[in-house]
Amino acid sequence: MYRKTFDGMNCSIARALDEVGEWWSLLIVRECTLGTTRFDDFQRRLGIARNVLTARLNSLVAHGVLEKVLAEGSERRNEYRLTEKGEALYPALMALMQWGDQWCGHKAPLQLVEHATGQPVEPVALRAGKRKLGLHDVRLEPGPGATPKTADIIASRNRAILGLE
Amino acid sequence: MYRKTFDGMNCSIARALDEVGEWWSLLIVRECTLGTTRFDDFQRRLGIARNVLTARLNSLVAHGVLEKVLAEGSERRNEYRLTEKGEALYPALMALMQWGDQWCGHKAPLQLVEHATGQPVEPVALRAGKRKLGLHDVRLEPGPGATPKTADIIASRNRAILGLE
Repeated sequence: MYRKTFDGMNCSIARALDEVGEWWSLLIVRECTLGTTRFDDFQRRLGIARNVLTARLNSLVAHGVLEKVLAEGSERRNEYRLTEKGEALYPALMALMQWGDQWCGHKAPLQLVEHATGQPVEPVALRAGKRKLGLHDVRLEPGPGATPKTADIIASRNRAILGLE
Repeated sequence: MYRKTFDGMNCSIARALDEVGEWWSLLIVRECTLGTTRFDDFQRRLGIARNVLTARLNSLVAHGVLEKVLAEGSERRNEYRLTEKGEALYPALMALMQWGDQWCGHKAPLQLVEHATGQPVEPVALRAGKRKLGLHDVRLEPGPGATPKTADIIASRNRAILGLE
């Protein structure tokens, strides 16, 4: 199995995958969004080997996606809970779910509604104002963390995807 | 390295990860959204081993995320292009990028603007109408692909995350 860190890339997708891109990690986060907190419950629901689960949980805790806390009323039992950083993954996770719903050949097992109103949650989309934007509607510009190489990436993308010179 | 398919789970996140969750796969898709089409360019830009790149490209083609086509004007050179299914990953990919921008300890290298207007693209969010929704604002309901087990997952999630009985 070929593996290296993506950390040398100046790319936030690579950095995100370095933290949650390991096989199982996003499914562990999914379990947390479903209310799972205990090691044995993660293990049983995911059907994952215990040593792998331990490694993934430790890594998610090390990256600040989960926190490990003593269960209320217990002096020994730990629980794993999403941090603010972990909860912030929810849109990305739901975008992936919606893509799976639409494109991976099965009907959607779940649908999302706003709890307060019962209104359906809209498919995740890129937007500016009221407009939904696709790959070809979006232009890249240098952000605060841009490097000289970023300018090349932007120019080449704007040429290839948008036809700009 | 522990590995199995997630296909036994009735979950669209698991199905999505079965198709694009291998290490490198989403970065290859990212490269496609940046306009990369040629094997050698993927290889150089990602710094990935050629055999691994071949395996990942073949898998993405097999899943219909990419298509392999003869380059225009060439009788030998292939290009890899996003299909409609592949382009549909863009919101999930950008959600992951935005999460990385905000939470992975570096300034954003890139920002997205609407090409036609120059307006900034908004952070990806779950929404109902104009309201942005977080993990605790959303309730799960059975979708068209629900199974008896789905009902248990929903009940346990609604209890744990929303405090419903």
